[in-house]
Amino acid sequence: MELKDKRRPSTLFFPKPVALVTAAAGGRDNVMTAAWVNVACMDPPMLCVSVRSSRFTHGLIQQSGQFVVNMPGEELLEAVELCGNVSGRDGDKFQLAGLTRQKALKVEAPLVAECPLSIECEVRHSLELGSHTLFIGEVMVVWLDDRHTDEAGHPLVERMRPFVLNYREYWGMGERLGTFGSGAPPFRVIP
Amino acid sequence: MELKDKRRPSTLFFPKPVALVTAAAGGRDNVMTAAWVNVACMDPPMLCVSVRSSRFTHGLIQQSGQFVVNMPGEELLEAVELCGNVSGRDGDKFQLAGLTRQKALKVEAPLVAECPLSIECEVRHSLELGSHTLFIGEVMVVWLDDRHTDEAGHPLVERMRPFVLNYREYWGMGERLGTFGSGAPPFRVIP
Repeated sequence: MELKDKRRPSTLFFPKPVALVTAAAGGRDNVMTAAWVNVACMDPPMLCVSVRSSRFTHGLIQQSGQFVVNMPGEELLEAVELCGNVSGRDGDKFQLAGLTRQKALKVEAPLVAECPLSIECEVRHSLELGSHTLFIGEVMVVWLDDRHTDEAGHPLVERMRPFVLNYREYWGMGERLGTFGSGAPPFRVIP
Repeated sequence: MELKDKRRPSTLFFPKPVALVTAAAGGRDNVMTAAWVNVACMDPPMLCVSVRSSRFTHGLIQQSGQFVVNMPGEELLEAVELCGNVSGRDGDKFQLAGLTRQKALKVEAPLVAECPLSIECEVRHSLELGSHTLFIGEVMVVWLDDRHTDEAGHPLVERMRPFVLNYREYWGMGERLGTFGSGAPPFRVIP
């Protein structure tokens, strides 16, 4: 059990969710692939996304104080790859990637219509950490495509087909392994 | 393409990485399942983890200014489920979950020996957002089990078997879909 190998500090952490982050300011908008995204708070609901300061999207979020996190399914892999490797300074990535803008409710940034899940956020904090800025946004509206839910309105993961980045590889979902909180261990469960 | 359904603000975002976060202070330590973890910065390398203020681990991180993010494989599902639903205030979760402490290099918190990847962090920022505090830690040491790498030292995802939370369900990895940055689109690639 002492087999681990020490390495220099790095960002070698995974799995990371694959998301498309949209932003808009000053009459321009953009869509960027981001994997450094997650939930930051439950009450109030907040997401955080880390964006390199040289990115076109970074300026759009800073100017507008708004962003949208969109969750693509596997069928959007090519669009995701393009949106992670091309700059919005060089063209309209929605057009290049074949993505459709859909009007958001509370923010200027467009939703990505092809994504089953989109979450509108307003920036509450931003931290300049070095190469990247961590934007922490309060969730204003959640959009969930009704073709991707069951009758109770719960998301159907097998239809949404989210995917992740492991190291630098995209991986799809395999099997459902279990449900959080179903273990019923013989101890006090945290409320 | 206008089929999305508006919902009230929530933390409905996924996929989220399944991690085991360890912390230690004042002669006590703990291991907690966390899914609200990700990279926050590349240079310097930083991770962020969001922890509910009522959690035992929250106090340990606040007191010590240190934490470790450990990445479990699928075979640790039961331990993960226990460590996410039992409080360290009620007992030694390492023992309850059958996990082994391994001494870290730069922090007091133990590594989880059974996890192929462990990342030691020192807190640089903490943001009290409401129900949760977002701890942003600089990566001090990365530990990668040498049974889970190829000859070049790159991680072998199929051996590590990371898993994620989708909504409230644990999901394993399926197929490798591609490699980030391999798309070679006919546009300038962001350096």
